[in-house]
Amino acid sequence: MVRYRATVAYDGTAYFGFQRQAAGVPTIQLRLEEALGRITGQGRRGGVVGAGRTDTGVHASGQVIAFGLDWTHGADDLRRALNANLPPDIVVREVAETGAGFHPRYDALSRTYVYRLVIAPVRDPLRRLYAWHREGELDIPAMQAAAGSLIGAHDFSAFGTPPQGENPVRTVYEATWWAGGDEAAFTIRANAFLYRMVRRIVGTLVQVGEGRMTPARFQDILTGRDPAQSAAPAPPWGLTLVAVEYQDEIPDAAAGGHRVERGEC
Amino acid sequence: MVRYRATVAYDGTAYFGFQRQAAGVPTIQLRLEEALGRITGQGRRGGVVGAGRTDTGVHASGQVIAFGLDWTHGADDLRRALNANLPPDIVVREVAETGAGFHPRYDALSRTYVYRLVIAPVRDPLRRLYAWHREGELDIPAMQAAAGSLIGAHDFSAFGTPPQGENPVRTVYEATWWAGGDEAAFTIRANAFLYRMVRRIVGTLVQVGEGRMTPARFQDILTGRDPAQSAAPAPPWGLTLVAVEYQDEIPDAAAGGHRVERGEC
Repeated sequence: MVRYRATVAYDGTAYFGFQRQAAGVPTIQLRLEEALGRITGQGRRGGVVGAGRTDTGVHASGQVIAFGLDWTHGADDLRRALNANLPPDIVVREVAETGAGFHPRYDALSRTYVYRLVIAPVRDPLRRLYAWHREGELDIPAMQAAAGSLIGAHDFSAFGTPPQGENPVRTVYEATWWAGGDEAAFTIRANAFLYRMVRRIVGTLVQVGEGRMTPARFQDILTGRDPAQSAAPAPPWGLTLVAVEYQDEIPDAAAGGHRVERGEC
Repeated sequence: MVRYRATVAYDGTAYFGFQRQAAGVPTIQLRLEEALGRITGQGRRGGVVGAGRTDTGVHASGQVIAFGLDWTHGADDLRRALNANLPPDIVVREVAETGAGFHPRYDALSRTYVYRLVIAPVRDPLRRLYAWHREGELDIPAMQAAAGSLIGAHDFSAFGTPPQGENPVRTVYEATWWAGGDEAAFTIRANAFLYRMVRRIVGTLVQVGEGRMTPARFQDILTGRDPAQSAAPAPPWGLTLVAVEYQDEIPDAAAGGHRVERGEC
């Protein structure tokens, strides 16, 4: 049995998130396990672990998974075999052998998400599945000023709930707005995220952009740690998990120093 | 009764093309007529005319339609009312009063289509609905050299069939490849197109890009007028009708000089 690490992209529109749920509920993990089962001829099987449990409707271009497999051909053949058994909205971009101890979630040093907005008077049917449409103008410099307060280690309770008994402190390394044409995109990289943290941050930053909240007020919400003060989460379809970062080629069984139980968003 | 001209965008994925068909078949025209029926309270009604009969699965960002309507509010209110009654994959981008004689198809001077490719070793789930995925590399300069032979007035029988008894000559004003990142896009503007002409041209140009055909051979196919020599049509989901061009503000009842019965692709 060899352990494989793979990078996976998916359109989350039709799925109830990454993580396997009750029988018959379509999830990314289930489809990956079904594909593995088909290429081994052993029917559906578990054992696929993902770096981030993306929520219902959230997309990924750089989700990382790992699984063990008896496979006598090359890694490229494995990728092709998996892709031939996956639906059109899920793809394995890369696959390679990895150390027996590699764990995509525990070993991840950080995750990068991008949240995409279309800012236009009229909605766009051709981007509706991958961006949140906002009719009014947004003050991007104000949103960037507010986002700057996210950088560093903070108790992010204002923007999400940690798993029971867990520390709500997360470290944000990057929080950057980009704007071009009628689009804006927010890139945020952190060691890990609380549940719906990215979407609640974006929802609140959009209030800053609409002039309904100052950047100073945004910072007060962050430091106040009261989830009742932040805005409702931005919708899932604007969000994409674009990358998971690891210490280059994690040594076998020696995990990095950033073991964080949950990488939600 | 006032005549309105509107610019419409849609994701063609779920539709059997623009043009109304048998009862119950989902088409763009049907959904527009249903929306008009709802805002007038008169149930579904005909009378919507489009500039181009886009095929099953083809998208539009700049389709032009016209319809007559008794409407006592402003054009912006009409747009909002229509959009509130259209599904998420269809939108009216702009609407304005027009002359009583305006006909979107007969009065159009030209149509512009864009065909989008993703050129990458692995398919991309997030672009699968809006671009044709090609695994191998493509020689874009060769494709551009071949496309150059399309410019001007030609008998395009090699790439499509005209309606019964109609002349197969069309005039192409622009045929340009753009490439950037892992994408390529082909923009073609012509006074009108034969049925599936854009997709058959793209399918054949991709053979040039793959080195399976020279630009000179492409030109021979064009001048040979034998549809058996060109390639199969590229798939519909890569194609978008991006614009329909008119003489600026067509004068009431005085149509331009380019009355062409069909604007297919």
